[in-house]
Amino acid sequence: MYNYDLSGRNKYYTLYSLIRDDILRGKIRGGERLPSKRAFAAELGVSVVTVQLAYDQLLAEGYISSKERSGFFAESVAEGLKKQRPAAVKKEETKEGEKFIIDLVHGNTPPNMFPFSVWARLIRGVLSDVGEHLLERVPCDGDKQLKRAISAYLYRSRGIDADPRYIVVGAGAEHLYGVIVQLLGRDKIYAVENPGYGKISSTYALNGARFTPVGVTDKGIDISVLENSGAFVAHVSPSHQFPTGVVTPVSARSRLIEWAKSSGGYIVEDDYDSEFRLTGKPLQCMCGLCPEKVIYMNTFSKSLAPSMRLGYMVLPPELYERFLQIFSSSANFVPLFEQKALAQMLDGGYFERHINRLRNYYRTIHGALIKKLAALPEKCEVVDTGSGLHVIAKFPDAKSDGQIKLLAAARGIRIKCLSDYLLAPMAGVEGCAVINYSGLTQELLSKI
Amino acid sequence: MYNYDLSGRNKYYTLYSLIRDDILRGKIRGGERLPSKRAFAAELGVSVVTVQLAYDQLLAEGYISSKERSGFFAESVAEGLKKQRPAAVKKEETKEGEKFIIDLVHGNTPPNMFPFSVWARLIRGVLSDVGEHLLERVPCDGDKQLKRAISAYLYRSRGIDADPRYIVVGAGAEHLYGVIVQLLGRDKIYAVENPGYGKISSTYALNGARFTPVGVTDKGIDISVLENSGAFVAHVSPSHQFPTGVVTPVSARSRLIEWAKSSGGYIVEDDYDSEFRLTGKPLQCMCGLCPEKVIYMNTFSKSLAPSMRLGYMVLPPELYERFLQIFSSSANFVPLFEQKALAQMLDGGYFERHINRLRNYYRTIHGALIKKLAALPEKCEVVDTGSGLHVIAKFPDAKSDGQIKLLAAARGIRIKCLSDYLLAPMAGVEGCAVINYSGLTQELLSKI
Repeated sequence: MYNYDLSGRNKYYTLYSLIRDDILRGKIRGGERLPSKRAFAAELGVSVVTVQLAYDQLLAEGYISSKERSGFFAESVAEGLKKQRPAAVKKEETKEGEKFIIDLVHGNTPPNMFPFSVWARLIRGVLSDVGEHLLERVPCDGDKQLKRAISAYLYRSRGIDADPRYIVVGAGAEHLYGVIVQLLGRDKIYAVENPGYGKISSTYALNGARFTPVGVTDKGIDISVLENSGAFVAHVSPSHQFPTGVVTPVSARSRLIEWAKSSGGYIVEDDYDSEFRLTGKPLQCMCGLCPEKVIYMNTFSKSLAPSMRLGYMVLPPELYERFLQIFSSSANFVPLFEQKALAQMLDGGYFERHINRLRNYYRTIHGALIKKLAALPEKCEVVDTGSGLHVIAKFPDAKSDGQIKLLAAARGIRIKCLSDYLLAPMAGVEGCAVINYSGLTQELLSKI
Repeated sequence: MYNYDLSGRNKYYTLYSLIRDDILRGKIRGGERLPSKRAFAAELGVSVVTVQLAYDQLLAEGYISSKERSGFFAESVAEGLKKQRPAAVKKEETKEGEKFIIDLVHGNTPPNMFPFSVWARLIRGVLSDVGEHLLERVPCDGDKQLKRAISAYLYRSRGIDADPRYIVVGAGAEHLYGVIVQLLGRDKIYAVENPGYGKISSTYALNGARFTPVGVTDKGIDISVLENSGAFVAHVSPSHQFPTGVVTPVSARSRLIEWAKSSGGYIVEDDYDSEFRLTGKPLQCMCGLCPEKVIYMNTFSKSLAPSMRLGYMVLPPELYERFLQIFSSSANFVPLFEQKALAQMLDGGYFERHINRLRNYYRTIHGALIKKLAALPEKCEVVDTGSGLHVIAKFPDAKSDGQIKLLAAARGIRIKCLSDYLLAPMAGVEGCAVINYSGLTQELLSKI
């Protein structure tokens, strides 16, 4: 009955997308009963868990609903949305065998941009200076020296006046999202931006919290929708939303803070790529506007090295107290070694020198990329906010997002479209390629 | 009404213990309604969250129950248990100001026992040998070289034939407990040993899973109780249970595996201190008896250094597949640096040399401790299994556990009793001090 091919590695995600597409295309009609998990697993030759995970994801995103003792049913999706939804979502899944010369989806900073010799020198210094103290247990919120260094760095680079005490160091963004759920409760609803970075919503779900996708307008998260969503937490990226690139203006920031104040909820300000503002000054952080309602969060994985799982958040004082209540008997997840080395990198100005170098590098890449896009035979409009490491390229004449990706693939380029980052159906996002150029080099560009 | 002093740091835990003791002592009677969270918070001058956390813990442990729209009610606790429960549980909380010369509760290996110069040499070697590859993203299950090194070490030291593929590296035991919940589901019931290491149950609870304490008999976890508990997972330490010191015999291990097979559940074999068997050979691991039903887990935090948050588990193949399905797009939490250095420490035999040295050291400390206990003016029987880094000292003439702790405190010794590790009321655990001697030195011993 269901002729699904689940031969790839990420079976549950493939199954989820296939069912989702069938619902969006009307192949599975609203109200139609889906097979039981066991029967479906047997039919597809996969484990029950695979079906379970796919159903969980569909449930979380509202494509299906479950009725006790009678099973899972497809939701009715508006006709209009069905048409706007690309039919060829299947093509977004990259087959293992498929070869791309250029990956504009997951890019990492070219390793030769990392100041390895400086870092190695700092590591050796830490080893001899800190010595056997490196073996000591790290307090749950992180090493004091690193917390102070981050606080000073935030002040210099972002104008954030954060008391070092309220900074919590963690093993990267995913870890900290989980800590936020443990702090604020998994019975709460977490509003996430739609379209958005899928890891945010999936990590909330993995930690047992409910999330609700809220559309992004040209002013950031749609506050009218947020106000009626029942959400307790709004997870936003006001500096540079991924993937739309939208920068939330000050007026919308104030409204967002008003929402948090009146609802009693919290804002997670995910400042994931603020280091990479290529032109002009970034807007003031929301945590500066209202430190008691905003959890500011950032990571060094993107700016230093992907192997370095180190992120941090600045907690409102009340939440910091709660953090201590829960975690005071736990040790921090990040080895003291990395914390000490990073502290020296920040205090010695090496990190900012590195970021400046990266920024200059990316300015060149960005310029060359814009030229390439302008020279394309297809009509293309670039939406460029001068911030972060991705741009949106609109192809108004493209027949579908599938066609955009196929044309790119024919040139050896792996790319995704705005619609690929949808967590819930949304109109008006067609024809926009999301170009993450963080892994791009001049050499690669010359191959296009 | 409630004359509770919550001036210490860990307010929620203090509140929880005070309510628990009042229930156990009958001061709060079974069926009695507890104040609403808001009212209680206002009365005590603490935040609502503090009361919430205390109530959550009491709920999880079955001291209170909640009825929708009417509040929280104390459960009836059997009269017999009330009497057996020490009245002075409050004294187990160490006040910030209190000074002890010797801590027999939380001990860490003396730092000078760590082969720091070897480790520093390995770190420098990794830095120059692995070089810029250290910046690469680590696969979700850990560095391949470390996984192979752990597999070989497990074979040499424990006779475990673990396919390196199924080993998952994580940021210590607490992190891995959370991953287990994400793998097996928070709708499941997790059976934990009672008395037991509180971190296990509290970490399950923190991750949103339900746990049920199951009593420990002289053969390990009580399987008859487990069979009727509705548990899906049994988290056990068959090599050397903490704090009872019980070693689960082979017959009970087989029954435990039968339980997992017939119930469809899993066993978490927490082998937290198996390196420290001081005499004889340890029993075969349960994961060797039935690799498809047992998750074997261990950590290097205890044997190497508390700052090193590095643990691992060997997953049954089916669960490893599920792990990849969930985490394949996530990076591992442990920096590659630590993973490479540990791999070299294992492969080069340095770790085993370190453990042998520690074992000899602890054999001496253990001997001296037993002599000290024998020379005490109080009647004392030592229960010694020749394994792990703690012993149980029974004081048959002690009036209460509170008295044992007060007498110890008068000598500058911080100690806990078996009853302090109870997750649920249990008879017959009185008069037993739990002596963790991992932080003990000859010098400290001479001060007693």
